Amino acid sequence: MSSTIDATYNELVDELRQVALLRSCGSVLSWDEQTYLPPAGGEFRAEQLALLAGMSHEQATSSRIGDLLAALSNPASLGGEDSLRFANVREARRHYDRATQLPRRLVEELSRVTTLSQQAWVKARKAQDFAQFLPWLEQVVALKREEAQAVGQGRGPAYDALLDDYEPGMTSDEVASVFDPLKARLVDLVAAIRDSGRQPDVSILTREYPVDRQAEFSRRAATAIGFDFDAGRLDIAAHPFCSGIGPGDCRLTTRYDASFPRGIFRHAARGRPRHVRAGFGPAHFGTAAGEAASLGIHESQSRMWENLVGRSRAFWQHFYPAAQATFPAALDGVVLDDFHAAINDVRPSWIRVEADEVTYNLHIMLRFDIERALIGGDLQPAELPGVWNETFQRYFGMTPPNDALGCIQDVHWSAGLIGYFPTYALGNMYAAQFFEAARVELGDLDQQFARGEFAPLLGWLRREIHSRGLQFRAADLVKLVTGKPLSSEPLLRHLNERFRPLYGV
Amino acid sequence: MSSTIDATYNELVDELRQVALLRSCGSVLSWDEQTYLPPAGGEFRAEQLALLAGMSHEQATSSRIGDLLAALSNPASLGGEDSLRFANVREARRHYDRATQLPRRLVEELSRVTTLSQQAWVKARKAQDFAQFLPWLEQVVALKREEAQAVGQGRGPAYDALLDDYEPGMTSDEVASVFDPLKARLVDLVAAIRDSGRQPDVSILTREYPVDRQAEFSRRAATAIGFDFDAGRLDIAAHPFCSGIGPGDCRLTTRYDASFPRGIFRHAARGRPRHVRAGFGPAHFGTAAGEAASLGIHESQSRMWENLVGRSRAFWQHFYPAAQATFPAALDGVVLDDFHAAINDVRPSWIRVEADEVTYNLHIMLRFDIERALIGGDLQPAELPGVWNETFQRYFGMTPPNDALGCIQDVHWSAGLIGYFPTYALGNMYAAQFFEAARVELGDLDQQFARGEFAPLLGWLRREIHSRGLQFRAADLVKLVTGKPLSSEPLLRHLNERFRPLYGV
Repeated sequence: MSSTIDATYNELVDELRQVALLRSCGSVLSWDEQTYLPPAGGEFRAEQLALLAGMSHEQATSSRIGDLLAALSNPASLGGEDSLRFANVREARRHYDRATQLPRRLVEELSRVTTLSQQAWVKARKAQDFAQFLPWLEQVVALKREEAQAVGQGRGPAYDALLDDYEPGMTSDEVASVFDPLKARLVDLVAAIRDSGRQPDVSILTREYPVDRQAEFSRRAATAIGFDFDAGRLDIAAHPFCSGIGPGDCRLTTRYDASFPRGIFRHAARGRPRHVRAGFGPAHFGTAAGEAASLGIHESQSRMWENLVGRSRAFWQHFYPAAQATFPAALDGVVLDDFHAAINDVRPSWIRVEADEVTYNLHIMLRFDIERALIGGDLQPAELPGVWNETFQRYFGMTPPNDALGCIQDVHWSAGLIGYFPTYALGNMYAAQFFEAARVELGDLDQQFARGEFAPLLGWLRREIHSRGLQFRAADLVKLVTGKPLSSEPLLRHLNERFRPLYGV
Repeated sequence: MSSTIDATYNELVDELRQVALLRSCGSVLSWDEQTYLPPAGGEFRAEQLALLAGMSHEQATSSRIGDLLAALSNPASLGGEDSLRFANVREARRHYDRATQLPRRLVEELSRVTTLSQQAWVKARKAQDFAQFLPWLEQVVALKREEAQAVGQGRGPAYDALLDDYEPGMTSDEVASVFDPLKARLVDLVAAIRDSGRQPDVSILTREYPVDRQAEFSRRAATAIGFDFDAGRLDIAAHPFCSGIGPGDCRLTTRYDASFPRGIFRHAARGRPRHVRAGFGPAHFGTAAGEAASLGIHESQSRMWENLVGRSRAFWQHFYPAAQATFPAALDGVVLDDFHAAINDVRPSWIRVEADEVTYNLHIMLRFDIERALIGGDLQPAELPGVWNETFQRYFGMTPPNDALGCIQDVHWSAGLIGYFPTYALGNMYAAQFFEAARVELGDLDQQFARGEFAPLLGWLRREIHSRGLQFRAADLVKLVTGKPLSSEPLLRHLNERFRPLYGV
């Protein structure tokens, strides 16, 4: 490697860091908006975020970055296609090409509108009033279509240009090709479970669980599986999310309700993404090496801890005594098996973020179909409630009683996050496939969990996945780690193995 | 006014708003740093804030702003020297001239160092260890000297260049000329009170005051005197401050300890500055019309509500029954007069923010002398504890047992706020002088307070002071509102009238 290339590469990394640093300021303002912003400050916040988005965009599209990328276009000079440098330049090029397609006006408008739209969404959901939200949805969809046109330039469906931002290199046809075979088999599994004579006592879940003790228990569980509260926080927000602001600052949010476990799974799980985000560590902040391979990969880490670990019997062999001590009024006299069956209750429900592992994926497929149609122009925003309710009836055999339990339950579309939903179900698939590979290498994980040992799994994930950042695209990473291309089979195997015995079906 | 001038002026205002908008993003990050930032995120936060400071500085010193100011240099074309436009251009010019004297490197370095230095200060204060803090203080003082040299260009004492940032147009000699006559008379008053046979029962103040009820009572009192929690927040921080982030978003912080009233005064009082900051309202955000005339004027509004109103007997005639109901264990059977005497207890104490109204000003004079010497080069940072303790002994007749109760009790120097302290005592003087004028116009304020009526005073302040923003410099505003130049006499009158009867001296 020549010293000129070295200098050019280092300058590029410096530029990328400045962009990421400015973006991270926006992350603080967004986190604050969703946690602590006084209501009257909403419009001003939209102006602040729009300004930062515009300035970040200007930095990210500077001609200097273009020149540096052009000077680094020879893979061999970077150390070849397997090198970290090559990957960093490849992803910088992808971001640059995408950003330079977007006028600053559109970027600022998207930021401003989606900030205000999220605030409108909070109110509309509370009022169970889709009509209140519709004008905002129309604006967001129009802007996202404009974004998709600008980025996609007519190559493939417009939706794919949005999806690519979250799941680089994956097309909507590829998503459909893993979703479709799964859909029918999930519907069958849900039906078999529904018709089973064996049903858990779910009343266990709605007894007395004081919110402050939930918070305390969540902190303890999160700490036990490796979340560092010296480098992170846990706050309350209308939409539970995880914001990796920067090195040493990763923030989870959650919401508590009266029932027990869901919040806890979420907290325990949401802490994980920071390990992905951290990538090779703070030194790689701002480069691809410091990012997850895709949002689906990122999500797979949450899903693994939330579902594969956090809802396993082995996990609760370890934590259940502490849970009983924390919530004696609710859990005294409840045996572990009954508790475990209750937290794995499978049944159609309205709200995605509270859904069980089996029906969850159907919630995603519903959204995937709808948002493809919205961006493709086959569905108008005003038609959303009708199509939502009709599809919901088909998948779940019931119709939402209002739109707060239906099409305006999620923050995503208000925030301009279209193309994002599929990554949740992809995350479930990646997680199951990685977990099978981890089992092969690490031996009896259940025994380890039952002893409260989570470090071996975490170490494996760090080594095999986190430390690779975005050196490989998701499809290649899956093959590298598991030896096979992505498939829905491991997830189906897991669901069958966990739920058929529980329900005797 | 010509339409060319109109267009030029409007463009200038747009530019200034963009600068203020970017600065306000930094305010959110600073607020967050002092309230919720995880410890491990401190270094990254310093990088974020330095970047924003550097970018703001670049915007604020753009040649475009210089050109616009040059094109607006004729007062007549702006509507004359009494016009709002003239004032906005005058202050924009002052900010621009100041900013263009400072290299971006210095601005970023100051931001980075003062962010880290504040974090170091929190730790050093906790450890009661000046030595830990000294290297940071040395860096801050060196950078502030550099700033003073760059801005002052050898015109007058270096310290004045820093003071001018907080109290525009005032020199340190002018500050000394109002401080000096006050000092001796305060020392006399403190001595007279100390030697009085009548002393309040201060044990009332350290009974059982649960922190959550303090917070609740504070919110109620703040609301009653006009603070709008829809447009603001109250959080906990190591250093109580008020951050006016932008329209609709004004944030107070406080710290609670076991004793009763001080926190309450502070909350009730700190909400006021937003009325000053708001100036003519959100439409003036970013211009002088949306700023206070000076930090002393700004502070005078807090001081008026905290001391002149909040420690008056009339105020407590209204609030005391609610206080008794909120803190029955502490206040049952305590009569109003005894309570009122206790919260007006005057005695030398270590901590400025907890000092009574009389000794408070001596705390400020001590700091004023020391920081002048630090910037003037007559005092080295390493000598600070010695000089502090010696002067403290002279003013208060006692020596701090450690530096946490002495020279490292305040956050200001760690934050680079040098030249800031005098504005607190100036604020007390402005407040007393304004209050006398308000009494003349509004009649018996005590009767109004006793009935819980605070709107007439607030209305007067809005009209006479807040709505004028920085249209007039502080010295001119005082003359305009009170008919006289600033003097320490009204403050002395107030202190004599309140405390001599209480102590029978």
